[in-house]
Amino acid sequence: MLPQFFFMLTAAYILLCLYLYLYPTAIAKAISISTKANISSYVWPYPTSIKCSDRAFLIANKEMHFALMEPGLFPNAHPILFQAFDEYHHIILNLTKQIPDSFTQISNSHFKLEFIQLNVTLKNDDVTLTYETKEDYVLSVDYPASTLTATTVYGALRGLETFSQLILEYNDSQLYLHQCVITDAPYFKHRGILYDTSRHYLPVSLLKKHLDVMAWNKFNVFHWHIVDIQSFPYTSTMFPDLSDKGAYSPRHVYSKSDIHDVITYANMHGIRVMVEFDTPGHTASWGKGQPDLLTTCYQDDKPDGTYGPINAISDTTWPFLTALFKEIVTDFKYQYIHLGGDEVRFDCWKSNPSIQKWMKDMNYTDYAMFEQYYMSKLIELIEQLDKSYIVWQEVFDNGNKLKEDTIIHVWKGGALWTIEMRKITAAGYHTLLSSCWYLDLISIKPDYYRYFRCNPLDFGGTTAQQSLVMGGEAAIWSELVDGTNSLSRTWPRAGPTAERLWTGSSTIGISDDEIYDRLKKHRCRLLNRGIPAEPLGPGYCTYPWVSTE
Amino acid sequence: MLPQFFFMLTAAYILLCLYLYLYPTAIAKAISISTKANISSYVWPYPTSIKCSDRAFLIANKEMHFALMEPGLFPNAHPILFQAFDEYHHIILNLTKQIPDSFTQISNSHFKLEFIQLNVTLKNDDVTLTYETKEDYVLSVDYPASTLTATTVYGALRGLETFSQLILEYNDSQLYLHQCVITDAPYFKHRGILYDTSRHYLPVSLLKKHLDVMAWNKFNVFHWHIVDIQSFPYTSTMFPDLSDKGAYSPRHVYSKSDIHDVITYANMHGIRVMVEFDTPGHTASWGKGQPDLLTTCYQDDKPDGTYGPINAISDTTWPFLTALFKEIVTDFKYQYIHLGGDEVRFDCWKSNPSIQKWMKDMNYTDYAMFEQYYMSKLIELIEQLDKSYIVWQEVFDNGNKLKEDTIIHVWKGGALWTIEMRKITAAGYHTLLSSCWYLDLISIKPDYYRYFRCNPLDFGGTTAQQSLVMGGEAAIWSELVDGTNSLSRTWPRAGPTAERLWTGSSTIGISDDEIYDRLKKHRCRLLNRGIPAEPLGPGYCTYPWVSTE
Repeated sequence: MLPQFFFMLTAAYILLCLYLYLYPTAIAKAISISTKANISSYVWPYPTSIKCSDRAFLIANKEMHFALMEPGLFPNAHPILFQAFDEYHHIILNLTKQIPDSFTQISNSHFKLEFIQLNVTLKNDDVTLTYETKEDYVLSVDYPASTLTATTVYGALRGLETFSQLILEYNDSQLYLHQCVITDAPYFKHRGILYDTSRHYLPVSLLKKHLDVMAWNKFNVFHWHIVDIQSFPYTSTMFPDLSDKGAYSPRHVYSKSDIHDVITYANMHGIRVMVEFDTPGHTASWGKGQPDLLTTCYQDDKPDGTYGPINAISDTTWPFLTALFKEIVTDFKYQYIHLGGDEVRFDCWKSNPSIQKWMKDMNYTDYAMFEQYYMSKLIELIEQLDKSYIVWQEVFDNGNKLKEDTIIHVWKGGALWTIEMRKITAAGYHTLLSSCWYLDLISIKPDYYRYFRCNPLDFGGTTAQQSLVMGGEAAIWSELVDGTNSLSRTWPRAGPTAERLWTGSSTIGISDDEIYDRLKKHRCRLLNRGIPAEPLGPGYCTYPWVSTE
Repeated sequence: MLPQFFFMLTAAYILLCLYLYLYPTAIAKAISISTKANISSYVWPYPTSIKCSDRAFLIANKEMHFALMEPGLFPNAHPILFQAFDEYHHIILNLTKQIPDSFTQISNSHFKLEFIQLNVTLKNDDVTLTYETKEDYVLSVDYPASTLTATTVYGALRGLETFSQLILEYNDSQLYLHQCVITDAPYFKHRGILYDTSRHYLPVSLLKKHLDVMAWNKFNVFHWHIVDIQSFPYTSTMFPDLSDKGAYSPRHVYSKSDIHDVITYANMHGIRVMVEFDTPGHTASWGKGQPDLLTTCYQDDKPDGTYGPINAISDTTWPFLTALFKEIVTDFKYQYIHLGGDEVRFDCWKSNPSIQKWMKDMNYTDYAMFEQYYMSKLIELIEQLDKSYIVWQEVFDNGNKLKEDTIIHVWKGGALWTIEMRKITAAGYHTLLSSCWYLDLISIKPDYYRYFRCNPLDFGGTTAQQSLVMGGEAAIWSELVDGTNSLSRTWPRAGPTAERLWTGSSTIGISDDEIYDRLKKHRCRLLNRGIPAEPLGPGYCTYPWVSTE
């Protein structure tokens, strides 16, 4: 009986191989119209390598099977990956909502069709999100099953996104996939967007929507500029007055559970949350709940009723900051914290008699030295909390002594960023670029070409210097942005930043037409996924964005 | 028995008067906090005259009674007014959604409170919407009932809007009204917004939302720039190919029923729909469904495959235009039609041998004369259809002979509009201004101050010349605007235009701070009514705009 069994098995195997070989060919013939499409133009950001053939597979049944190979080996990755399976299941099957009832009938009479099958293989089960987390993957789209191999679960998430972008429509109603092989990994390790929740409060539900779209663009850092001059929505257990008095209202705060919720949601999508507590300037809202913190400004030898930056020599300042940052690092686990340090104005410090006296005693003449004194003590405090830090470029410019792994964040505009990055990297520090990607600076001129062509490596440094560029961030400062326009103003305009940071300079040379065509496809995909991404120019998408109201 | 009855009646009357006299005073005392508020700052656009006292009436019950006095006399106005009653009922009672359950209890223990009662008196039953339609009203907010008197039902709609804006919140949960008398009427008769449905298709549901907000801002003209170069969404029964081939897709069209729906909706809100069919330029989309209409452009004595403006001398042009405009005026009943006439480029006409020959035969040398020939014939056609018309400024600049009641629409930017309006009014024509209110020209600089201070009368003409200014229009051209951002980009930025056109120059001198404060309140009201009106600067509204998604 055994030989007979083997014979049957071998025969079955040959038939299967033959079937697998012949089947896609038949399909490819049947939908020859679509095979001329440039499939890779649908993927945003562009992968390191993508090769697609003319073979296309029509998908008949509204079924999709994602499987993790050897799941027992990946207890940590499992929940993250399976949530992603659910989400992409939903995203991809939503594409089929316009399939007419008669579809199965039509298709059955022409082709033999199958469901989607994707088998995922991971190499390790490490789910800690650090600056070094690997996001590489290899995706093979094929019949009868596609495969995705990634070092970490986060690479698998990136691959799933690419996979979902390769599922296209045929004749406005049917879905199809092309046979493709994609090898992909990010160029930069830090690819972020800065969201400002102080000028306007952004509800948690909105932040989560942004996190969704960030993941679809393969961003991996949510830079949470949580407090600033206008309001203090962070709720501190140690210092409840900070938000009680500094937030716009009791409704405009992030509770501990909100913060936990945002971080968990971000992490589940492979996104790190880097919080910023910007000091010593930009702190007016802090002063409402912590009265002795800010510098009293003087005019004509009398307090003039206004307050300046944090008073670095007040008795209460350092115990307060120590306790507050201890609490902050408990809430925000990511290894980096952003300490701000931008735009500190000296006039109030200069007017204050106690600070004048202290400066004299210390033999300091330049108030940049007073700022340096503040930043040095703050950095010392953060180092004791075992955290790494990012600071705005002024902290470097003012000559502060910084830890070796400090990242200097370049934000000042115009062509000056190249000079700044040359200086920073020459001094051996890591750096991040935001100067070219201030999405809040709107104009009627199309800005996406400019965003697309801004290359963080293009500052003329040596290869060693360039290797210190850790990535960059788009910034959507919220003076004029809140829940009414945050999504439409950020998307798809943050898309070019995403591609530049993912690909390095590999796609930088493509034409305006190609940028427009690809970004328009990407924008239409965002609409299809329910995001009110604004248009790039006249035209329309197959799927309109219709408000659910 | 009779004398006793009269005694009782008299006693009851005295008691009632005493009650009415004493009651508001008691209330006013009780909510003295709110009486310091500048109630008139909540009304946008600002009324001709508003006088409010410190007397305030708290509203206890979620009941509102609107009544039309002598309803039998107003069979035409009745449905319009009663729909408005329903709408404002909804708008005002939505304000109370945050009233805590314990409210009745609290209030009952302190004050005796009532529901809202408004009695409306009309002077006539004419509901035809023309350029001359009266919109004046007098509103008296008082206890126990408020009264609203208006010449027409449309004036009553404007008064209802003002009434709704005077209902404020007290302690975030209770509603109150101040005793006020408002006498109000618009300065300009034509107060519009131009919407462009060609660069992007705007769904009917979105247009209706805009019509709502227009009515809340007391705008009265929906300028429907329905077709243009990019697409032709107007469906013609006579020439179905125009939209079949010229629209973006079969989904991106306005059916006859859509058009009827939009017009009815607009009219019910006191808004006229003025359609624009812009010719002879801006017509690329027309050519797709009407092949002989556009001029064939030539290069090196051969057709180069491109097309220019409408060919004024083609055999088929005039029968086509005559039939099409006959159909258009059947769909759009408003007495004015906008005929466009802007930005006609002559190069294609110049290149065409038949036109060259015709020009030679006619002894014409300047191609502006060819354009003039086209416009003259078009105007003749429209006059035969018994319509009045509006044209863009170029038609006047090119010296066309125009009907006396023609309105010249000034759109070119910069300070040149004042020169243009001087010329137009010196020639005795009516004019409309749009130059300062191109809402699509976004920048990061706050533009609402500039919009607010643009005065259509400020061109230095005589009083007689100024009397020819019929009003103006904000314009939201839609190259970069569609369903994703149309509401947030238009509102509240069209608000300043609304106020300028409603008040003439009466509020033009108020400070930046006052503009900001009032417009911010107006914007928060729009949020509260469910419109994602974008922010003017950092801050928050009591009611956030939360997407329903």
